[in-house]
Amino acid sequence: MSGAVTTLDARWQRLAEALFAQIQADSTLGVGVTRASYGEGETRAMQAIERVAREHGLNGRWDPGSNLWLSLPDAAAGPAIVIGSHMDTVPHGGNFDGLAGVVAGLLVLLHFKDRGIVPPHPVRVLALRGEESAWFGKAYMGSLALTGQLAAADLALPHRETGQTLGEAMQALGIPVERVEAGQPLVDIRSIGAYLELHIEQGPAMVARQWPVSPVTGIRGNIRHNRVLCLGESGHSGAVPRWLRKDAVLAVAELLSRLDDHWRVLQQMGMDLVMTCGVMSTNASSHAVSVIPGEVAFSFEVRSQNEDTLEQFYQLMRNECEQVSRSRGVSFRFDRKLFTRPATMDAGWVQRIGRACVAHGIETESMPSGAGHDAAVFANIGVPSGMVFIRNDRGSHNPHEAMDIADFMRGVNVLQTAILQ
Amino acid sequence: MSGAVTTLDARWQRLAEALFAQIQADSTLGVGVTRASYGEGETRAMQAIERVAREHGLNGRWDPGSNLWLSLPDAAAGPAIVIGSHMDTVPHGGNFDGLAGVVAGLLVLLHFKDRGIVPPHPVRVLALRGEESAWFGKAYMGSLALTGQLAAADLALPHRETGQTLGEAMQALGIPVERVEAGQPLVDIRSIGAYLELHIEQGPAMVARQWPVSPVTGIRGNIRHNRVLCLGESGHSGAVPRWLRKDAVLAVAELLSRLDDHWRVLQQMGMDLVMTCGVMSTNASSHAVSVIPGEVAFSFEVRSQNEDTLEQFYQLMRNECEQVSRSRGVSFRFDRKLFTRPATMDAGWVQRIGRACVAHGIETESMPSGAGHDAAVFANIGVPSGMVFIRNDRGSHNPHEAMDIADFMRGVNVLQTAILQ
Repeated sequence: MSGAVTTLDARWQRLAEALFAQIQADSTLGVGVTRASYGEGETRAMQAIERVAREHGLNGRWDPGSNLWLSLPDAAAGPAIVIGSHMDTVPHGGNFDGLAGVVAGLLVLLHFKDRGIVPPHPVRVLALRGEESAWFGKAYMGSLALTGQLAAADLALPHRETGQTLGEAMQALGIPVERVEAGQPLVDIRSIGAYLELHIEQGPAMVARQWPVSPVTGIRGNIRHNRVLCLGESGHSGAVPRWLRKDAVLAVAELLSRLDDHWRVLQQMGMDLVMTCGVMSTNASSHAVSVIPGEVAFSFEVRSQNEDTLEQFYQLMRNECEQVSRSRGVSFRFDRKLFTRPATMDAGWVQRIGRACVAHGIETESMPSGAGHDAAVFANIGVPSGMVFIRNDRGSHNPHEAMDIADFMRGVNVLQTAILQ
Repeated sequence: MSGAVTTLDARWQRLAEALFAQIQADSTLGVGVTRASYGEGETRAMQAIERVAREHGLNGRWDPGSNLWLSLPDAAAGPAIVIGSHMDTVPHGGNFDGLAGVVAGLLVLLHFKDRGIVPPHPVRVLALRGEESAWFGKAYMGSLALTGQLAAADLALPHRETGQTLGEAMQALGIPVERVEAGQPLVDIRSIGAYLELHIEQGPAMVARQWPVSPVTGIRGNIRHNRVLCLGESGHSGAVPRWLRKDAVLAVAELLSRLDDHWRVLQQMGMDLVMTCGVMSTNASSHAVSVIPGEVAFSFEVRSQNEDTLEQFYQLMRNECEQVSRSRGVSFRFDRKLFTRPATMDAGWVQRIGRACVAHGIETESMPSGAGHDAAVFANIGVPSGMVFIRNDRGSHNPHEAMDIADFMRGVNVLQTAILQ
């Protein structure tokens, strides 16, 4: 380690707790926390972050993608170490998923300013919009737009509730959609020397292993269809005999049961794989208890750290759809296939974060991330990237996430110490 | 046969075609035909029937259950042969399911009046409300209320779209709900000497066998749950490993696949059985492509002509739910179990209808009904009941039903001839 290892004052913990509580209260809609991508709750939370930063003498500015950047008042020019995360949540999700990483960055700057620590490289905090795929069916929208990687087809995706397209939602915030559509980065990519993200773990591994903080080695990618239609034939539930039925619900039930079996076997063979059908519904405008279901819509997602595994399981799914079509007289229609590449974290940053854990007396091991993060976007365009995971009970993407504030402060200390090496 | 066999004039076919077309045009809402139980479309259709009846010199009156009765102007007193069917449809269903039976009754009266035929017993036509279970999750509401058999719990059932309860919907039509709730018949049951119903076949058997008209021997009963909840645990779709998941969609997929297998085997063993899950959905307020589904709601229905088979398959379903609960860490919650008894048609009427088919030169055989009909309600309280099925391509409870008007007229001729024996 170069220089003495410092630890954040308790008052920064109190500030973080107050900020978490304030933003939660302002984002809660019924059960859990809801901040839609490119929505008003997201904006209000970003403004709350900016207000606190300015009150403490930090600089704040908004980039053309409507993301918020914070920096020390006397920040040097040149490539910066960017501490980033996202401000949106899934519907009825948790408060810390994303927000914790931005507050962590804010605390690092406040600690440096307060103690007069001058980091070896400029440090900036980036509060990103639009990371959750729950709203427009597309993940990493904020970081992809920022780095010129959002496709025109993505801008046409409709909001799950309002039907407004992603492009329209961006335009409403003053984002230059024509630049996004043309694939132009909205900031100078060369100004991002490294990208670091602190995030709650969204699975149960760290709780089980008693690791409060962990360096992340890589991020699972995924292949998705937001909407697959299985089309059979509706008919009277009492009067059509079994052999003449084309029941879409039983067809999808068979498809999923087959895939579930394959998943079990492939995992036993050592492949990294999870499969989810998070959304499923018969057609609400025509379904009834006494009608054979002629239509089922469902989502499909497979995740893996291995790009080949993703494509292999995807092809298996398509093959099984063909088999079920033949045996049950149904057909399947697929919307756009969405692909998110797996990503590898920078080995140097994994080591620095690991050493910082040791410096703070934290026993841990590095681990992969099952969930996707904006860090994958930066890593995949060649920005050296690192992630710090914080232990979090009861998972994320649900209202019951539970991060201990002491673990969070441990993570912030690891983050600032890693930067100072 | 007693007396000469008569055949309806062509002008009654033209009147029926005009009436079908007018009521269809007045009930169409997007795809198919929609006349909700105890709704405005149902009322308008009944008023259209009454108008035509009165224009042709028939009597019309509304009973306390808001059902419409038609009779010849000089109808004798005493127990009547009642020709009935229902006026409602499933959402986006077909025009003939129910309506055909009422128009058939109207044509029988018009034929008798026109030719001066005096039937051996008074003949009345009954246009019933509320037969379809699609709206309130309960079938035969009109005939059950009429005969004092609707339960208080049924009156509390909510409408699928408006949330209004069945009791409220009845009250809005001036029906004395307190009498219904007390189980009092709304007409003198002794005045119903027999119940006859002409109905389109709702399955494909008659098309396959080239029977235009068929006497019905019995009606399948059913056991239903309108809403079963499978509760698992939501979580991040990438970060929770397989062994820690409680995925409600995969649990229900396995349950349905197991039941589908059992159904196949039991049918091969000769049991009469159909199973349907017509409604299924993840929780729309919290589901997302990237969230492990923690909740699925679905309907369950089993139908059989055999009461024991119904109960046996139902118990099998409950057992499989317990097994899936244990293996997948989910739980199942059931709403009220609904039971509709199978029914047997009166042997005398089956024979009379069969002989009338022969008299009109129709080659046919008698067959059971896979679908439920109001005739089951009357048969099960001891009213001698009979049914006439009309061939109908492409099934029912869907917008594509296709009854040939020539087959319909054959059925009306069979009906009036059977009554005159």
